[in-house]
Amino acid sequence: MRAVVFDGTLRLDPDYPDPVPEEGEALVRVRLAGICNTDLEIARGYLNYRGVLGHEFVGEVVAAPDHAWVGCRVVGEINAPCRHCATCQQGNGNHCPQRTVLGIVGRDGTFADLLRLPLANLHRLPDSLSDEEAVFVEPLAAAFAILERVTVRPSDRVVVLGDGKLGQLVARVLQGVGAHLTAVGRHPAKLERLRAAGIAACQRDELPPERADVVVDCTGSAAGFLDALQLTRPRGTLVLKSTVAASLSLNLAPLVVDEITVVGSRCGPFAPAIRALATRRVDVRPLLSAVYPLTEALPALAKAAQPGVLKVALRP
Amino acid sequence: MRAVVFDGTLRLDPDYPDPVPEEGEALVRVRLAGICNTDLEIARGYLNYRGVLGHEFVGEVVAAPDHAWVGCRVVGEINAPCRHCATCQQGNGNHCPQRTVLGIVGRDGTFADLLRLPLANLHRLPDSLSDEEAVFVEPLAAAFAILERVTVRPSDRVVVLGDGKLGQLVARVLQGVGAHLTAVGRHPAKLERLRAAGIAACQRDELPPERADVVVDCTGSAAGFLDALQLTRPRGTLVLKSTVAASLSLNLAPLVVDEITVVGSRCGPFAPAIRALATRRVDVRPLLSAVYPLTEALPALAKAAQPGVLKVALRP
Repeated sequence: MRAVVFDGTLRLDPDYPDPVPEEGEALVRVRLAGICNTDLEIARGYLNYRGVLGHEFVGEVVAAPDHAWVGCRVVGEINAPCRHCATCQQGNGNHCPQRTVLGIVGRDGTFADLLRLPLANLHRLPDSLSDEEAVFVEPLAAAFAILERVTVRPSDRVVVLGDGKLGQLVARVLQGVGAHLTAVGRHPAKLERLRAAGIAACQRDELPPERADVVVDCTGSAAGFLDALQLTRPRGTLVLKSTVAASLSLNLAPLVVDEITVVGSRCGPFAPAIRALATRRVDVRPLLSAVYPLTEALPALAKAAQPGVLKVALRP
Repeated sequence: MRAVVFDGTLRLDPDYPDPVPEEGEALVRVRLAGICNTDLEIARGYLNYRGVLGHEFVGEVVAAPDHAWVGCRVVGEINAPCRHCATCQQGNGNHCPQRTVLGIVGRDGTFADLLRLPLANLHRLPDSLSDEEAVFVEPLAAAFAILERVTVRPSDRVVVLGDGKLGQLVARVLQGVGAHLTAVGRHPAKLERLRAAGIAACQRDELPPERADVVVDCTGSAAGFLDALQLTRPRGTLVLKSTVAASLSLNLAPLVVDEITVVGSRCGPFAPAIRALATRRVDVRPLLSAVYPLTEALPALAKAAQPGVLKVALRP
């Protein structure tokens, strides 16, 4: 099959071995795959990953232990836990120390014709949901992850830092809570997309000086954390969504003096994301910047890294 | 009056002006003052504080707007908020942006013959509590602050990093929850004091590799945070108690990937601390290393900085 492989350099392999499903796994033909900033980080060497890139996808089941799934259009959760260890038995399979992660840790990803995933990871899609919308399920679930861990009150002042792919989705999710929400970004076109969704959006220097109850860092930059820390009120909550490979020099004393809570947040629940898309409570259609054929994956990844660009997808 | 003053260098001033109470404030004669690591940091230039050092004390009220307080033996909360701003009205006076803080921000401290504090900050002491015990009320309240912000479950595995002044108190407070608690330190004599209080205590390299549900960093070192992060299980909680002036180079990605919650924690409630001392639920008597006369404050501060030493107090 064709696959986008990172083995120190990034290349399109026209003849990569087809995946061979293991016990309990389905074989899925990829219909559409989304490019995430984590893919861009991995292509720079983050996590020392080697294999097929990509973890966002919509696909069709080709083979499965339960034949009722064959032919179904699906999305899939990216963590494949062992299901036996103490962490799994406590319901924290996403943190299983033995887990593989689609396109991120020890498991070939979605920028390919085919992939394999445990059947337990798959979610059927309603027919009403287009591939172009459903490819947002995984990152939208990551946005919903915030509300799984942090109580955001309707009376809270909330600031989302970053108007990129993730910030756009996080702002739309938090909008649902009814809080006083402001999204902050740098790109006029991206800010305009937020405003079109009914979300107050501004440049950083236009933000009122008053510190917020909840600040979500979706900047994707190490420096974003420092800015987020300054924007969080004493006893407020800073949610860290960006996985940034870079280190930064940090004095943690303000975090103690202001008694701030910092919550790291990663993958989230798929069902709320599918519901929000199916009902168009979250309308992601304005967020798809471009669809490239899989054979044009390298230009597509370059495109996804450009300022002003939102989601770029690959169609095998 | 006599006072230990920091104005870039540290000195004992035999003739510092007596404090003049403002409206609502009491004048207090200091009976005993405790030395905290924050005092040592301030004496190195932390926070650019200028004035009389010290924030832990037991004293006797000399003058007060309500004469019923005169003659009472008291301890005092260190934050003096404006009581009018939005932060104060939300009940977060300890975070009032206009606040002064005894011996830390814009208000002369406790290493002196006399101090002034708002009457509202004072707490009367039961006669059963000696000065040598009551001088621990403020730092013990800071240890109780953890339980004001974090739910520590009896079934949790808890690690307290640091066997110094604060770590000793934090371990004793968390012992009360009934969790599986291990205190980690470097000094055999300090670990022995923890064990004598019924707390499992060990050197860092003796700690089992299993990560803990709750880790409290009381190391007082910037590097302690990194160690605490490695010791916290995915979705666990890291409580940061040390205010360290130093910066460290930090990659925050593990915090996101493991979805860890970091809680900064500072000052705490006095009433539970007084109760715990009065009932000897927390017995601090083994934690007082030395009492120096105020005139010996400089050698006392040097003593407090030595490894193996716990609380050092000054008696005016």
